[in-house]
Amino acid sequence: MQSFDVVVIGGGPGGMTAAMTLNQLGKTVAIVQAEHDSIGGVCLNRGCMPTKSLLKAATAYRYAKQGDKYGLNLSAEKVDLQRLRTIVDTDLDALRGMIAGMMGQAQVEVFYGFGSFQSAHEVMISQADGSSQVIRGEQIVISTGSETVELPFAPFDGQHILSSDQMLQNTEIPEKLLIIGGGAIGCEFATLYHTFGSEVTVVEALPTLLPREDQEAGRALQQAFEAQNITVKTGVKVEQIKVEGGKVRVKFDGIDTAEVVDMVLIGVGRRPIIDNLNLDAAGVVIERGAVKVNSAMQTNVPHIYAVGDVSGGVMLAHAAEVAGQMLAKNMVEGTSVSLADGAIPRVAFSHPEVAGIGASKESDGIRSFTMSVVPNGRSVVDKVAPAFVKLFVEEESSVVAGGIIVGEAATEMIHELALAVENRLTLEQVGKTVHAHPTHSANVATAVHMFR
Amino acid sequence: MQSFDVVVIGGGPGGMTAAMTLNQLGKTVAIVQAEHDSIGGVCLNRGCMPTKSLLKAATAYRYAKQGDKYGLNLSAEKVDLQRLRTIVDTDLDALRGMIAGMMGQAQVEVFYGFGSFQSAHEVMISQADGSSQVIRGEQIVISTGSETVELPFAPFDGQHILSSDQMLQNTEIPEKLLIIGGGAIGCEFATLYHTFGSEVTVVEALPTLLPREDQEAGRALQQAFEAQNITVKTGVKVEQIKVEGGKVRVKFDGIDTAEVVDMVLIGVGRRPIIDNLNLDAAGVVIERGAVKVNSAMQTNVPHIYAVGDVSGGVMLAHAAEVAGQMLAKNMVEGTSVSLADGAIPRVAFSHPEVAGIGASKESDGIRSFTMSVVPNGRSVVDKVAPAFVKLFVEEESSVVAGGIIVGEAATEMIHELALAVENRLTLEQVGKTVHAHPTHSANVATAVHMFR
Repeated sequence: MQSFDVVVIGGGPGGMTAAMTLNQLGKTVAIVQAEHDSIGGVCLNRGCMPTKSLLKAATAYRYAKQGDKYGLNLSAEKVDLQRLRTIVDTDLDALRGMIAGMMGQAQVEVFYGFGSFQSAHEVMISQADGSSQVIRGEQIVISTGSETVELPFAPFDGQHILSSDQMLQNTEIPEKLLIIGGGAIGCEFATLYHTFGSEVTVVEALPTLLPREDQEAGRALQQAFEAQNITVKTGVKVEQIKVEGGKVRVKFDGIDTAEVVDMVLIGVGRRPIIDNLNLDAAGVVIERGAVKVNSAMQTNVPHIYAVGDVSGGVMLAHAAEVAGQMLAKNMVEGTSVSLADGAIPRVAFSHPEVAGIGASKESDGIRSFTMSVVPNGRSVVDKVAPAFVKLFVEEESSVVAGGIIVGEAATEMIHELALAVENRLTLEQVGKTVHAHPTHSANVATAVHMFR
Repeated sequence: MQSFDVVVIGGGPGGMTAAMTLNQLGKTVAIVQAEHDSIGGVCLNRGCMPTKSLLKAATAYRYAKQGDKYGLNLSAEKVDLQRLRTIVDTDLDALRGMIAGMMGQAQVEVFYGFGSFQSAHEVMISQADGSSQVIRGEQIVISTGSETVELPFAPFDGQHILSSDQMLQNTEIPEKLLIIGGGAIGCEFATLYHTFGSEVTVVEALPTLLPREDQEAGRALQQAFEAQNITVKTGVKVEQIKVEGGKVRVKFDGIDTAEVVDMVLIGVGRRPIIDNLNLDAAGVVIERGAVKVNSAMQTNVPHIYAVGDVSGGVMLAHAAEVAGQMLAKNMVEGTSVSLADGAIPRVAFSHPEVAGIGASKESDGIRSFTMSVVPNGRSVVDKVAPAFVKLFVEEESSVVAGGIIVGEAATEMIHELALAVENRLTLEQVGKTVHAHPTHSANVATAVHMFR
């Protein structure tokens, strides 16, 4: 039986980063990678990267459709999703090549197959043809990631009722698309299909879009969506979804008239992948559907750890990546560090973009200041809506506790605030920093200077 | 004679900001605004803003020309510069409206006409028809800005040999455009006209483009330009420029063959506007062509100050703006603060963008680290060249002393580094900040983590 210092089950951002860092720290490492994905996990294969590739095409398409706004004579033929998919595949191949290179340098051994526990130290790798082998790990990392959640009354059919995974394989632009779930995934697909010509409705059960964010920000995004003719229904629960004669009838709680659309995307969340892992064989305990870990990312079995989506939490690639580095140190150096939620930037690559860091709600000792419309010459010449900026500040110290931005370049701009939050800089320290003209980042300075 | 606490000569970013801040601090303020510009100065009327409006159109046009890259069928008709100018004018009108609103709120009185000193406390405002009036200021601020520099052997003719001001009025896309001067202005116009279809050559007398920046960064931009088929000649001096039969012959020092082009843009720099100000009547001293000021932005005449381009230095709108605020405080509160060059972000909105902050050269006690090609999945899905990032760090303290980025979104990303430099954060403090995936800003984290 092949034996390694560490066996990592799942090669997404968390597992891969942990594996490479462990290897740098002198450990022999194996990654077990299920065949439904390549190394890179959901992020690379079915998440961040393919959506960003499509969103880039959407950006180009939006410009071409709005030539008049810029004084240009541009034209755009209807989008061919089949063609876009070949572009996405080329991108993903390039990304897989980058990762293969890194893995090669790191001397991490990759086993393809489905990994499950045979015992607390043994991982079985099963192939589709029924064959299998077992490898041993002195320590084991569970990083199997997450999968899309189905609505119990509306199973995915890949044609009319789709998961985000299926939506990435879709080659038809529906005339009417209804998106259930107004989180980052729902909002990104809303931007995508709206840009490509679908009539899009986003339905969110909670009171605002991006329900984990500050409600004012969610409403700012809603207004921006509505100004583009994306329909948004918040505080509305879906009761029934029925496919009839090629259309989908969606009934809402307490509303008489049903919506009839061509396609429904279910984006109501993701859940850890723990089924079939045979955690019992290792004695690993789960809690609320996720692998239970302590502040060192250690499970109840001391030599078994979990990182990334499989242990619940924010489920973001960059969080898993940083956590993977921390985990490697915990495992080798015996430290006990993990990533605080407040340190993780939250981003939605919708149009407009939304990005937040740190505090997202008012609470004791925190004061907030909102500029719904930040005056900025750059938004005028760029012909984009002015940004929304909200800042959260510790009342006593004036330390920046968090911020949220809705607008052009928000996902880049947020890093200035992330640096401030992480290093406990005050409003004054951000405010005295000169911001270049004419940039979108100047909005941060404006909000800081206007803070009352 | 009308009398004010402060008379400000010139309503660009420096003068305007000083005026509004002085007014907030309780002073009565007048601005004298020459008629060749509206309030807003070069930045609004003939600099940052119109170029950014055009560069935005160029971005849209570039996308439309490169549809294949994104899997889209897009097309673009030849750019009509006349039509673009109406778009630019609409943008500038909107910006002037924003400023008029601010000025109105601030109760700053605006006098249109050419301002010059009649005495140390009196400013004469002359009209084109020969009429004039005189107003009095207890204190006076000189903020008349800068103007484009002509080459002695090649006077601007507005048709074949153009200043950047004239280039903004130009309505012909030349087949061949030669740009003399590889600074930010030259590089932005190179991007603009290359995108619009001109065959562009940039000639810089010094060894690299953006000669005030680190040479590696200048060479990175040169490579990126060359990859787009923009010709770059560095270390080459222009000897002679002659207009012959509708073409321009440009001879270079030590090179036998002349270049024959349709249009030449001279972008070799800007100089303070001090002619006709009658500084002698006030006794104000100049030094190397600029109004001489001390560290409180005060001239040799204690109640007369100067701010922005007219006093030399970096000549950037955002520097003048912040300096204007500082000046107001110096004048009212007797402080003696001014803006350190190292605190001012330096930006070029070329394609790719370039942005720098703080140290730009290696020197004693400073260590640098260059990543010429930062691996980043986002550049793959965005189909843009990977970024160049160079960091400067204080050897003893590990404090970030500066950085320079060449690549997509550089002008926004630079603000994270600006915050770090301004607040003396260390590499470690920047490195522990989580960067969102997949963003261009992640390049900063990568460079920090790889720093050797």
